[in-house]
This record gives sequence, structure tokens and C-alpha cells, in this order.
Amino acid sequence: MRETYPGTKTNPGNYFEDFHLGQEIRHATPRTVTEADAILYLGLTGGRFALASASTFAARMGYDEAPIDDFLTFHIVFGKTVPDVSLNAVANLGYAEGRFGVPVFPGDTLSATSRVIGLKENSNRQTGVVYVRSTGVNQRGETVVDYVRWVMVRKRDADAPAGGTQVPDTAPSVGVADLHLPPPLPAGAYDWDLAGSPFAWEDYQPGEKIDHVDGITIEESDHMTATRLYQNTARVHFNQHSEGQGRFGRRLIYGGHIISLARALSFNGLANAQRVVAINGGRHVAPCFGGDTIYAWTRVEESLALPGRTDYGALRLRTFGIKNHPATGFPERAENGKDYDPAVVLDLDYTVLVPRRK
Amino acid sequence: MRETYPGTKTNPGNYFEDFHLGQEIRHATPRTVTEADAILYLGLTGGRFALASASTFAARMGYDEAPIDDFLTFHIVFGKTVPDVSLNAVANLGYAEGRFGVPVFPGDTLSATSRVIGLKENSNRQTGVVYVRSTGVNQRGETVVDYVRWVMVRKRDADAPAGGTQVPDTAPSVGVADLHLPPPLPAGAYDWDLAGSPFAWEDYQPGEKIDHVDGITIEESDHMTATRLYQNTARVHFNQHSEGQGRFGRRLIYGGHIISLARALSFNGLANAQRVVAINGGRHVAPCFGGDTIYAWTRVEESLALPGRTDYGALRLRTFGIKNHPATGFPERAENGKDYDPAVVLDLDYTVLVPRRK
Amino acid sequence: MRETYPGTKTNPGNYFEDFHLGQEIRHATPRTVTEADAILYLGLTGGRFALASASTFAARMGYDEAPIDDFLTFHIVFGKTVPDVSLNAVANLGYAEGRFGVPVFPGDTLSATSRVIGLKENSNRQTGVVYVRSTGVNQRGETVVDYVRWVMVRKRDADAPAGGTQVPDTAPSVGVADLHLPPPLPAGAYDWDLAGSPFAWEDYQPGEKIDHVDGITIEESDHMTATRLYQNTARVHFNQHSEGQGRFGRRLIYGGHIISLARALSFNGLANAQRVVAINGGRHVAPCFGGDTIYAWTRVEESLALPGRTDYGALRLRTFGIKNHPATGFPERAENGKDYDPAVVLDLDYTVLVPRRK
Repeated sequence: MRETYPGTKTNPGNYFEDFHLGQEIRHATPRTVTEADAILYLGLTGGRFALASASTFAARMGYDEAPIDDFLTFHIVFGKTVPDVSLNAVANLGYAEGRFGVPVFPGDTLSATSRVIGLKENSNRQTGVVYVRSTGVNQRGETVVDYVRWVMVRKRDADAPAGGTQVPDTAPSVGVADLHLPPPLPAGAYDWDLAGSPFAWEDYQPGEKIDHVDGITIEESDHMTATRLYQNTARVHFNQHSEGQGRFGRRLIYGGHIISLARALSFNGLANAQRVVAINGGRHVAPCFGGDTIYAWTRVEESLALPGRTDYGALRLRTFGIKNHPATGFPERAENGKDYDPAVVLDLDYTVLVPRRK
Repeated sequence: MRETYPGTKTNPGNYFEDFHLGQEIRHATPRTVTEADAILYLGLTGGRFALASASTFAARMGYDEAPIDDFLTFHIVFGKTVPDVSLNAVANLGYAEGRFGVPVFPGDTLSATSRVIGLKENSNRQTGVVYVRSTGVNQRGETVVDYVRWVMVRKRDADAPAGGTQVPDTAPSVGVADLHLPPPLPAGAYDWDLAGSPFAWEDYQPGEKIDHVDGITIEESDHMTATRLYQNTARVHFNQHSEGQGRFGRRLIYGGHIISLARALSFNGLANAQRVVAINGGRHVAPCFGGDTIYAWTRVEESLALPGRTDYGALRLRTFGIKNHPATGFPERAENGKDYDPAVVLDLDYTVLVPRRK
Repeated sequence: MRETYPGTKTNPGNYFEDFHLGQEIRHATPRTVTEADAILYLGLTGGRFALASASTFAARMGYDEAPIDDFLTFHIVFGKTVPDVSLNAVANLGYAEGRFGVPVFPGDTLSATSRVIGLKENSNRQTGVVYVRSTGVNQRGETVVDYVRWVMVRKRDADAPAGGTQVPDTAPSVGVADLHLPPPLPAGAYDWDLAGSPFAWEDYQPGEKIDHVDGITIEESDHMTATRLYQNTARVHFNQHSEGQGRFGRRLIYGGHIISLARALSFNGLANAQRVVAINGGRHVAPCFGGDTIYAWTRVEESLALPGRTDYGALRLRTFGIKNHPATGFPERAENGKDYDPAVVLDLDYTVLVPRRK
């Protein structure tokens, strides 16, 4: 049971000194994910991957019905963690070891827990970094996604002692052996025409760069509706009255919405990357605001055969979200070769499955 | 059968002199409410109450599945009455004796009727007040909500006689004996962690004030989509071309959307108020427009034990919607102690059920 | 199988010289249409036709459940054709011979093919007109809609030879014998009150004009969400960054969204026109942009008895979408009597079914 909050019935969120190593948090508001979530997500992002779009296509791939988009699952699980983990966050610093588990189908109910696996107070004692491993499960307790996230969180009281000091080691990427793999793809079942691209796993080479061409402008209503759909309550996304007086003078767009748009745009070039199986790492490099236009490009980092499987191969991708600038020139680094190009807003390292041609 | 409209096939709405005491109106467009309504409503308002969010949570509370949010039911029923009752309204004056009946589940089809229970012409003879009792029923004819509403309606012809004069008495609040109660809550079934708050019915005291902390900015697209979802056709909400030349120069936000936002915000402090069972009264104190930010606070008016029930108690609440101003200071009255504080936009008196700790 | 694109994995769309007479194109991304599509469409357009709104009303009309709105079906099928047919289009010139087939129900999966039935290079050799017959089918291969569309498409290379020259003949309207008719309407089953209008097929006369009265303002978020829902990828609708530098300086609204709004507005005057059975022709006369307010009016072109049916009659309608101007004066032609009135944005010739009074 959560502790009561002295003097108030509202949730002030946790401050840095409220966390301690090994702490387990059960997050509120379980959520039944429905066909309607899939459709509203499609309406807000413009996704076209055939597996998530058509139950007939899913059936030919061996699924009982179309699974919920992997990033939609991620956002819903992530949203649950916000009131306990990042309500007092200054910055969302990174992700690692994100692994998608059993697929989510309409009607499944997701809930989430987090364990504090690292803490590091900053030298100014005003803030500290909290590392959590968050796990989303379905109504049968099966893991649907788990990931490590670290955020910089304010202290309530600079003099308060930290609940420990430890920086966890995280793997640079999720190993092939740890990926949750889909049902076998029956020979000849995959319809490349309907999928929208003839390019199979074998066609993608490490180092290859793909400009996803299109751009999409974000309206305030779109990102707020998406973020509400995830029951993500971070205040910076919703309140122009307070944010107008804040750091940016604007509502900040939930970084996960940028991930979703980049993934949707990546259809043009990666249409057969039907499943996302891992989030190896990710950074929201720069903030996005209503009116910004998002473009994206991807570099293939690794091409990975899957042990014992000849139906699918994995690609480790790095997709860059680019703001108010076409992705034509593959913007990545600034002229100093070290900082990000000022147009980059997202640097996402993730792993997808693509059918093999056979 | 509705009368035909001389010279036109379009519905001009009823004017004050078209109503008569005892008149019964069957409203058009029955509506099957679906899981998708629940999800889109969630996406537009940001609700987090666990009962409406998760079928597993609902099952533990004794429901077959997650019921439709009570205010969503209210808005859909209300929307049906607009073309017949308030198309020519000048102002929506108030609500009373609102009572939620059997819960609505996805797949139920709602329709509505209204009976004219009061009429009072204004002294200028340009307008009059129409009092209706509107009733929403499901496909089995069971009442899902009924309420009294009064609106000021234009006359077509100032010289036309009124269809009667009578001002109905309405009760100041719905009595405990008249509330439709939920299924029994099995002992130990309620998960306070997942619900998001440890506070039970016993923890709330009359006079207690709760600042719901967060604010949410309303985009034109959000309130129009919500209001279209309810098939509410009041013109002031949708047409900037005509409203730009009107009283406010802006589209007016449907007052019910403010109710929904205030209810969603109230999760922070009232997370266990899973069901709304009565609307005792309500006033839309001031208009809201696209770009406004809504905050909310609540005063507990009464704590009511439910005869024969030890699982739930009722709270009569008064929730104030506040515009472009935090609710921190609990704004209610202006300095003269009589008028509303200029930041108040909604004053809603309603009754919720909260599990008892036992 | 689609050809691979030399040097890139992204789809550049087809240019005029890529089309040849008789070419068959299987379009990508099959789409399972759900209850959620119906609800989101309702939320974006404000539709009130009872058949699409209530399963109980549909059951009384002889349907197993509420069918998907006909224009929603059209938009989803149309959306699939865009990446192959009109990604490089300069203008969407017209529609003909559009015929709705078997109704679509939630759970059906739609896919689409197109056949090139005409080609005509323009004299400047920069562009040419492509005529396609596009067909949408459900998971059983039954046609749900098919139509002829012609678009002006850019050439990649002005010197490239055209794939043929032929301008197909299209019928001025779909004949009564070719209409797909609904199940028999049981005697006395139709509830005119719930439908929202007492006017039966017999009440509409050729030449009659109906002003649909209301106007609706379009937000950027609304039209983009609708267009994403249809998985329509035409770039002009989504990218303010590029369109801001383009012809209009604005994102262009998908013409189909204007059709949907005009249809929804037409409820007020045509509430019993429950099914659209044919699109005889249509022109998007002028572009629409975010912030525009759409009004509509309709002229009854023909009243058509249906052979062997006394339950329904057909009306051939011409509905005009009007921008930023009430439809009161039935704007159609400019003063020269030839061009369109500058307020007209849509001229749609279509056929609906209306119950007969009997």
C-alpha cells in the first residue's frame, strides 16, 4: 500500500530522497487495451505496417489477431510509471535494455511495476538521477515489455540524504538470444505486395542509410490526445497556462510521440519491419513543440540472424527524428563532430524483425 | 411522429412558444455506445479512474466489464436532446435531480426522451425558460440517467402565447435512498494501489477542500471532437465563421466538456470516487474558449452512509472548474461575497461512491 | 510483386510514364475496419444518420449490426491507392461510376486494387492524366466499392514516352439496375422519430433545394487525424514545413474530408438518406485549409423508383460544399454563369436510398 501524504490527498510525486535502492513500486491504473486504442493510435500517428493494420495479414503471419503496436504498448506502460517516477523529473535522460515480451492483443489489461536499480545524487544536491527497471505485464502476469529508464529528479530538500548511490551497468544492446520471437512464419504466407515493400531482411546491410522522405507536422491536439491516451500525466505536456511561464514558454511534446511518428514515417523504407523487439537505447536530444514538423532517417547498425530461425532476421536500427528540416542529408552530428546536429530531436537504437526472403 | 416543418425539410429547432406543459419529445438518433467511445473519451479528457480503465479492475468490483464513464453517458443522452430542446437556447441555466441508473456497458444502445415540466415566459416576451426532465434509456428500456434541465429559449414571435406557466420544484440534492447502487464489493477485492490512492470514504470529511493541482489546456479540436462524439449539434460550438461575428467572437466550448475535464482532474485527490451516482445541481458560471486552461478544486459537502451497505459510502461533492488560474486558493466567491470569483467557470454539485476501508 | 526501386528502399510513387494501359496494381496495407473507426469518424465529422449510429436501428432495418459509413469505406479504399496512383499527382480531377457494393461491418478487412483504364499526356509533356478503376474488396473478395478516378500526374522525364493514349468513356450516373440494394425493410420497422425526420422518399422532388443550415470549422488536427485514419499518405495534407514553402503556403485538406463534412451536415434535411449507393461524379472545385468553415446545400437531381422494391426509393443528389459562406442562397455558379461561385469547394453527384412511406 502506498503511504498517505501528510496534509493532502493529492499525489505530489516522489522526490529524489523518496527513492531507495531495491524499492518496488506498483503503479496505478491498470488499462485494458482495445481495438480502439490501436485505431486512435493509427489516427494520431499514421502507421501503415500491415501486421498492426489487418487481422487477415496477422493471421497469415501466425497471429490469432492483429497485435497492438509495440510502441503503443510501451507508451501505455511508460505512462503508468510517470506519477510515481517522473512527476518531479527535470529531464528524461535515457532508456536501455528495453525488451518486448509476449504480444498484446485487444482485450488484454496492462499494469506496471518499477524497481529502483540505481541512484546518484548530483553534486549540487538539488537533483539526482534515478534508475528504474519498469515492467509491464498483462492480466496473466506475462511480461509485455520491460526496460531501464533513468531520469533526473528534483530533491524536495537539498539537505536530505540520498537513498543510496549506485549506477547500474546496462547492456549496449539486447542480445539476440534474449529477444522474444514471433510465431513461425509459414512458408509463402507473407504477402510482400500487401506489406508495401519487396525488401527482405537480406536486402538491408549494416551502414545503409534510409531517408524516410515524408514529414508530419504536430498539432497540440494530436500530441495531447496521444499522451492522454497513455494516461501519462506529466504536467509539461498539457498546461499552457503554467508552461507559458516556464522554460520554453510552450507545452513540451511527450518524447514518446516523436518515437511513434518516426516509427510511422519509417514505413517508407522499412515496411517489412513488422515487429519491434527491443529498445537498445534512446535519447530525446531536443524538445519538440506544437507546430514542429518531424522527419526521420535510419541507419542499419547490425544485421542479426536469429538462431534456429530461417523465417525472420533481426536488424538493429538507429532512427533519428529530425525537426523542421528534411532528413535528406542524414543529419546526425554538428560540425564539431561531437554534439548532435541542431535539427536532431531523437536518437533511437532499437531492433526490429523482418521476414527473410527464403 | 414529429410534425413536418412548413416550407423546409430542415429542423429549425423549437422556439419557446412551441413547447407546452406535459409535452413528451422522443429524441432522434439512438446511439450504440462502444469501447471506442470509452477510449476516445479517455483520449480527450485524460481520465484515470481504474474502474473505467480496466476490465480486470471492474471484475474485482463485481462488474462484468468496465462500465462506460458516467459523464460520457450523460453527455450522449444530453446531446440527443439538443436539436429539440436547446437549438434556439440563449443560455443553459441549470441542472437538478440528475440520477444515474443502471450502468452502461459497451454495446448498449442509448436513446432519450424529454418531458416539458415547466415554462416561464420572461417579462420582455422575447424569451422564456423551458424546464424539461430528460431520460436516457438503454435498449431494454432501463433508465441510465435522468435529470431536470432548464434553458432560456428564444421566441419565434414575441406576441405568441406561451404554452403554460409553471416553475417546477426540484430537490436540492438526490436523496441517498434514490441512488442506484453498484454491485456488492467483495471483501478484500478492492486494490487501493492500482486505484492510485489509499483514501477511503472514511477519510473524507465535510468541509474538506482538495486542490486537484493540475491544469489542462483545451484545443478547439479537442472540444469539438468530444462534442461531435456526443452528437450534440449546438451551433455555437462548431462554427467559427458565424461565432466570429457573434457575442464572444469565438466558438463556445460545450459546458459538459468542462465537467469532464474537472472530473478527470479530480482523480488527483479523489481517485477512489469510482462512480458518479447523482448530479444534484450544476451551473456553467462563465464561458470557456479554445486555449483556456482548466484547473479544478473540490469541497466535500456531505458524507453519506448508504443504508444497508458497508462496502461503499457516498460523498456529496462540489467541484469548481477554474479557468486560467491555479485552484490553489480555492477560488469561489468574488470580493463582494456574492458573485462568483471571475476565474470560476463551473460549479457542479454531484454525488460519488467511494469504497469504505472496512 | 512490385518492382524494386533502384538505389533506394523508399517508394517514390509512380510518374506518368510508369503507368500503362491495362496495368493492374495491388495496393499495400490491408485494413481491418472496426467499431473504433466508426466512432472516430463520427467524432471527426459529427454524423447523425441513425443506421450508422445504432445497432438496434440497424437491426430493425434488417442488418445484423450497424454497417460502416459508406464514405468511410470509400476513404479507406481511396487511401490505399494514393501511394501507387497519386503520390506524384498535381490535381485530383474527378470521380465517376462509383458504386458501393456489399456493406462493410466492423471486423471486415479491406484491400484494394486499381486498373489503369486511360492515359492522356498533356501537350506540355510535363504531366498527363491517368484514369484508374479502383476496387475495394473485403476479406471474402466481395466488392465493397469501386469507382473510376482520374488524376493529373507529373512525369519524371518530359521526354519519356507515355504508356498509351486512351480516354475512357464513363457513364454520367450509375443506373438504378446497377445499384447494390439493402436488405428488405420490414413493414412498420422504420422509426421516423428516431431517424430524426418525417420526410420519406416521396417527399423529395427533382429540382428541390435544401440548405443544410449549419457550418463546421475545420481544425488542422481534425483533417489530419481523419486522413491518417484512412492511411492516405498524400504529402500535401500533413507537412506544414514543406507546404509552407509551396503553392498555397498551407497544408491542403484531403477533399474526402470535405465530402464527409458535407454528408454529415446534410443530415439536417436528409436524415432518412441512410445509405449512399453511388458516387456518380464529383469535383473538388477549390482547396480548403485549416480554419475554413464548411456549409452545404443539396439539389435533388432525380427521384428514382427501384425495380421490384416498394420499401426504398433512390434520390440522385447534388451536394455543394461551400466555404466561409452560408449556403442560404444556394451558391453554385459565378456571375458569368459558367464558372463556379468562388465559395463552392465541392460539387458531388451521388445517389442515396430513402425509405418510402408506404
